[in-house]
Amino acid sequence: MEAEFIDTLVVKNNTKIIFLIMDGLGGLPMGGRDQTELEAARTPNLDALAGKSVCGLLDPVGYGITPGSGPAHFALFGYDPFKNNIGRGILEAAGIDFPMTDRDLLIRVNFATIDTNGIIVDRRAGRIDNETNKRICKKLQNNMGRISDRVEVIFEPVREHRALLALRGDGLRDEIQETDPQQTGLHPFSPKALVPEAEETAALLHELVNKARNILSDEKKANMLLLRGYSRYRQYPSMEQRYGLNALAIAGYPMYRGIARLLGMTIGPQPESIRAEFMALRENYKAYDFFFVHIKPTDSRGEDGDFDAKVKVIEEVDSLIPLVTELNPDVLVVTGDHSTPAALASHSWHAVPVILSSATCRPDRVEKFGERDCILGGLGRVPTMYLMGLALAHARRLEKFGA
Amino acid sequence: MEAEFIDTLVVKNNTKIIFLIMDGLGGLPMGGRDQTELEAARTPNLDALAGKSVCGLLDPVGYGITPGSGPAHFALFGYDPFKNNIGRGILEAAGIDFPMTDRDLLIRVNFATIDTNGIIVDRRAGRIDNETNKRICKKLQNNMGRISDRVEVIFEPVREHRALLALRGDGLRDEIQETDPQQTGLHPFSPKALVPEAEETAALLHELVNKARNILSDEKKANMLLLRGYSRYRQYPSMEQRYGLNALAIAGYPMYRGIARLLGMTIGPQPESIRAEFMALRENYKAYDFFFVHIKPTDSRGEDGDFDAKVKVIEEVDSLIPLVTELNPDVLVVTGDHSTPAALASHSWHAVPVILSSATCRPDRVEKFGERDCILGGLGRVPTMYLMGLALAHARRLEKFGA
Repeated sequence: MEAEFIDTLVVKNNTKIIFLIMDGLGGLPMGGRDQTELEAARTPNLDALAGKSVCGLLDPVGYGITPGSGPAHFALFGYDPFKNNIGRGILEAAGIDFPMTDRDLLIRVNFATIDTNGIIVDRRAGRIDNETNKRICKKLQNNMGRISDRVEVIFEPVREHRALLALRGDGLRDEIQETDPQQTGLHPFSPKALVPEAEETAALLHELVNKARNILSDEKKANMLLLRGYSRYRQYPSMEQRYGLNALAIAGYPMYRGIARLLGMTIGPQPESIRAEFMALRENYKAYDFFFVHIKPTDSRGEDGDFDAKVKVIEEVDSLIPLVTELNPDVLVVTGDHSTPAALASHSWHAVPVILSSATCRPDRVEKFGERDCILGGLGRVPTMYLMGLALAHARRLEKFGA
Repeated sequence: MEAEFIDTLVVKNNTKIIFLIMDGLGGLPMGGRDQTELEAARTPNLDALAGKSVCGLLDPVGYGITPGSGPAHFALFGYDPFKNNIGRGILEAAGIDFPMTDRDLLIRVNFATIDTNGIIVDRRAGRIDNETNKRICKKLQNNMGRISDRVEVIFEPVREHRALLALRGDGLRDEIQETDPQQTGLHPFSPKALVPEAEETAALLHELVNKARNILSDEKKANMLLLRGYSRYRQYPSMEQRYGLNALAIAGYPMYRGIARLLGMTIGPQPESIRAEFMALRENYKAYDFFFVHIKPTDSRGEDGDFDAKVKVIEEVDSLIPLVTELNPDVLVVTGDHSTPAALASHSWHAVPVILSSATCRPDRVEKFGERDCILGGLGRVPTMYLMGLALAHARRLEKFGA
């Protein structure tokens, strides 16, 4: 089934759907322990919820595929992560909540160090700090001048050695060779056109790179830029257009706010704690149909390789669950976008446990929220991109298919 | 995998396959009960069968999709419900067991009431009774005359305000605007061609609608007709052609007889009880390879919202199971086409429990036929359109793929 098929069945309803997403929720046993982070956490509220809900395991992208945050979140919201594979440039822009327009070509910049012969000696410019990054971007912005009458150039710092370059103009193309040779000891590649239609854009980028090299020539570390992940801005159909949902995103981190904005969600105030996120949900509950509540620290502590700290985050979320369940949403989904086991200190390919709580769900025998329990859940194992259809169905927002 | 792939592996065999389909079998707990209809029912025979079979859960169309009877049954017989999404006109014709030909354009008619200005005031003509419907169809048939030398017009009553209109001729097209504006207070739409190739058909329908309006002008309620769901007859490859199966349908309700006919099954006599269906199976057992036994009341009682009555139907079927198992079929499948939980009083998207009993099945640990038990079955969770391949395989009717 195509993920977009559900769009043809959408009907209006006043029901409310909450997606509580603990980033990187799924885990692994670590250091002789027998339990995953979620299994080890004391979660009486989530266990009680699992007991009266239907549970299962979600596969974010596919068997064995470790997803980045972009594909993982697109899948959660019912956007096929292959067909909607978000360009690195757009994701970088979304990640700093950059206000994109449909005339933008978005490019990820890595600052690098070259020697006097122009050979790359450090592809990350010694991982310059954020302040240096800001200074360099400003320097480029102030000295670049115009490279064309019709194209605006915008540099935005991201962090360390990473920045965003946006070209804004008509007819820009993204079929351009990346200039990062992916190893030191080589000259940067030239931003060559990969198709004839991209010649004009390639010429602009060629000039831009030369100018940038001159502007940065007095820098010790960041004296060159490498271009990657060219992506023309792409308009995604919004959740309002696809599902008739008036959606609110409650997320502290810029990337998730950016992704939510790409899908047409309203972006809530930037909360400073998990509790503040839940309070923002409650305060805005009347005004929206769909709520994306994004909990970042589960992923961050997983990335740190800190099993116990990830357990603590899960326990904190559990303690706040009554703030959500008291709202009596028609559908409450609790899951993650992917697994980030502390044992691997990175995203992983492992399936993600999910609770779908609704008056219309068919209960199973799962009594505890954990990976091993969810294997036996009534949802079985579901590609994440179908979760949205299940949520809409349980919220009585899909009509019958065929007579 | 494409549903049709199994066709390439079909080999001849003398084995027999029975599909015992309890329409709308899957359910939900209701009114404080903890069990579904099937779980609540006392089913010693089905439980014993489950104990020595392989069980699982079927998804009729896709996650979250509530199927109509057409797609749900097409999937059961191994026809991809998306690729073979049956038009409303054909389903209406199948529903009254209308003998379609490959020159037919089939159209669903709703009788409606218009005022003196031609504005629709009741889209269902006050839900006229079946007798009035028959009289009006006859009146239209007798007075319509010919609208073309090459096209025959046939009106057939369905029930209440619904009828079937068949145009029979060469080159008829179905790309025509529906005339039902889906609300009162408007004029009916014109049956306009949606593509240039449909102009001729549109002109015929235009004339037909005008004539019908004149013929019905003295009617108080049904003084207009609205046209919907234009579908050109489509020839489906038969089960004989696809699987080499000589199939018999034992079904009391016209729609299921009609669907079976579309797939080339022989249609058995119309039985008057569940027991009579099982007796018809026994009487015809020698003459066919495949048997579709359709039990309607599970769905009807579910649609009524009557949990206890649905339980009783399941128990009645259970008590008759020995009449089937005594035949020792090579494959016996017991399942439903979709769920119809009494709690929702309608079809639903929930997966459907299935038993596949065969000497060649690999048993699992399921000892009871119920939704929660089938989660743990050896078939796991299977899209319904793959059930037919599993049945053929267990009946030793599929050869090896590749060397």
